[in-house]
Amino acid sequence: MTEVKPELHTSLSPALLDLYHLEHAVVVIIDVLRATSTIATALSNGARCVIPVDSVSKCIQLGKQIEGITAGERDGKIAEGLSHGNSPFEYPREFIANKTLVLTTTNGTKLLHMALEKGASRIVTGSFCNLDSVCRFLLAEKRPVILGCAAWKDRVNIEDALFAGAVIHNVKDDFSINCDSSQIAETLYQSGKKDLFEFMKRNRASHFRRLMGFGLEKDIRYCLSLNQADVLPFYEDGKLVVQKSK
Amino acid sequence: MTEVKPELHTSLSPALLDLYHLEHAVVVIIDVLRATSTIATALSNGARCVIPVDSVSKCIQLGKQIEGITAGERDGKIAEGLSHGNSPFEYPREFIANKTLVLTTTNGTKLLHMALEKGASRIVTGSFCNLDSVCRFLLAEKRPVILGCAAWKDRVNIEDALFAGAVIHNVKDDFSINCDSSQIAETLYQSGKKDLFEFMKRNRASHFRRLMGFGLEKDIRYCLSLNQADVLPFYEDGKLVVQKSK
Repeated sequence: MTEVKPELHTSLSPALLDLYHLEHAVVVIIDVLRATSTIATALSNGARCVIPVDSVSKCIQLGKQIEGITAGERDGKIAEGLSHGNSPFEYPREFIANKTLVLTTTNGTKLLHMALEKGASRIVTGSFCNLDSVCRFLLAEKRPVILGCAAWKDRVNIEDALFAGAVIHNVKDDFSINCDSSQIAETLYQSGKKDLFEFMKRNRASHFRRLMGFGLEKDIRYCLSLNQADVLPFYEDGKLVVQKSK
Repeated sequence: MTEVKPELHTSLSPALLDLYHLEHAVVVIIDVLRATSTIATALSNGARCVIPVDSVSKCIQLGKQIEGITAGERDGKIAEGLSHGNSPFEYPREFIANKTLVLTTTNGTKLLHMALEKGASRIVTGSFCNLDSVCRFLLAEKRPVILGCAAWKDRVNIEDALFAGAVIHNVKDDFSINCDSSQIAETLYQSGKKDLFEFMKRNRASHFRRLMGFGLEKDIRYCLSLNQADVLPFYEDGKLVVQKSK
C-alpha cells in the first residue's frame, strides 16, 4: 500500500491564510527580516522563552509584570518605552541567557495570532537561522504543513518566500505538494540559493533596501545564513520555547 | 532633469488587490488559462466585442437580449444553458467575426469587476497570446500599472504570475518597480521562459493538471505561446473591444 503523504501549502501573505486548512496542521511562521531570525537566536543563546505581543503598550506592560526584556522597533528605531530592538546581535548568550524576551513585531506577531485563532495544531517559527530544525520537525510530525509568510503589511516579500522555498527544497519528497505558491517559492529559492544576499540585492527586495538604508547589512547577512541558531521555537501557552528534539 | 518613471506593481491574487492604488492606473487583467487568451483570440478573429459577466444566468439572459454567443464552463464542461465553452479554438474567424461573445468566467470576471469598483483608470486584458500589444500599450500610456493576476479562487497560480513576469521583463526599463511580487514574477518567468509548457508541467501547476485531465493539452500549448492573437482588449462601457494602436 502506498503511504499517503501529508499536504504542504505555502501562504505567501497573511491575507491569503484563509485559503488553507489550519486545523491538524503545523504552521511555520516565517518573518526572516528579522523577527523569526531574532527569536531563534535569542532562544539558541539560552533565553528562557520569547513572548510575542502585538503592540508596544502590551510589551511595556508585560515587561514590567514579569521583569522581561522588552524589545521592538518602529520605523527602524527602538520603539519608545522599550529597551531593545529587533537585531539578532542584541541577544548574545551573556545577555539573554535565562531571561524572558517580550518582543513586539507587526507582521510576524499578527500572523502567529491569526494561526492561533484559526486553530493551527502546532505553531513554530522558521528562518534561515534554524532551517534544519524546522525541516527535521516537519519530517518527524508527518502532519499537513502550512508555510506562513509574514510578508510586509500583507504585501508578499522575497525573503519569506525564499525561506519557504528552502524548506520545500528540503522536505518535498515527504509531502504531497499541489500548491502553485509552493512551486513558485521553490523556483525562487533555486534561483537565489547560491548567494541569497546577492539575490536579494539584485532583485531590489523592498525590505532589504529598507534595512540597508538603516545601515543593517550585517543583520541581513546573518539572517540569510543557514543554521546559525539551529533550535526550534515552539509556541505553547502564549510563549515560544525551544522544542527539544525527539 | 531625470524623468520620474511610473510605478508598476503585481497583485498575485485578487485577495491582494486592495493593497494597491488603482486610481489613475492601468490594470491588466491576467487569466492565462484560459479566459484572457480566449478573449484576445475572439477579438483578434473579428468578434465585435466580448462582454464579461459573472454568472451563468446573466450570460443566458444577456445572450438572448442581444443575440450574442453565450460561453462559459463549470468544472470543465460547457455550463448548462450556454452554447459554447472556454476554449480559444471554439472561436475561429469564420465563426466569431462580427458577433458578440458573452463570456462568463469565475476568476477573471471577478477581478475585472473589482478593478472597476476600485476606480481603475484603464482596464485591459493580457495573456501570452497578446503579450506584445499589452507591453506596447503600457509603454505608450506612461501611467502606473497594476498587473492583476486572476489566480484560482484567490490562490496564486503559476501561469498568471509567469505572464506578469513576461510583461515586466519587457517593460521594466520604463517603470519604477519597488515590488517584491513583481521581482518574484520576473524570476519565475526567467526560470520558465525557455519552454513555458515544460515549466508548467515540471512544476505540477495546478491548473495545468486540471486542464490536462480534461484532455486540453492543445489549449494549454496555445495559451502559452506568444502573440498568436496580438490585439489589445480594452474595457469600456461594459465590454471589451479592440483598442486600435495609437
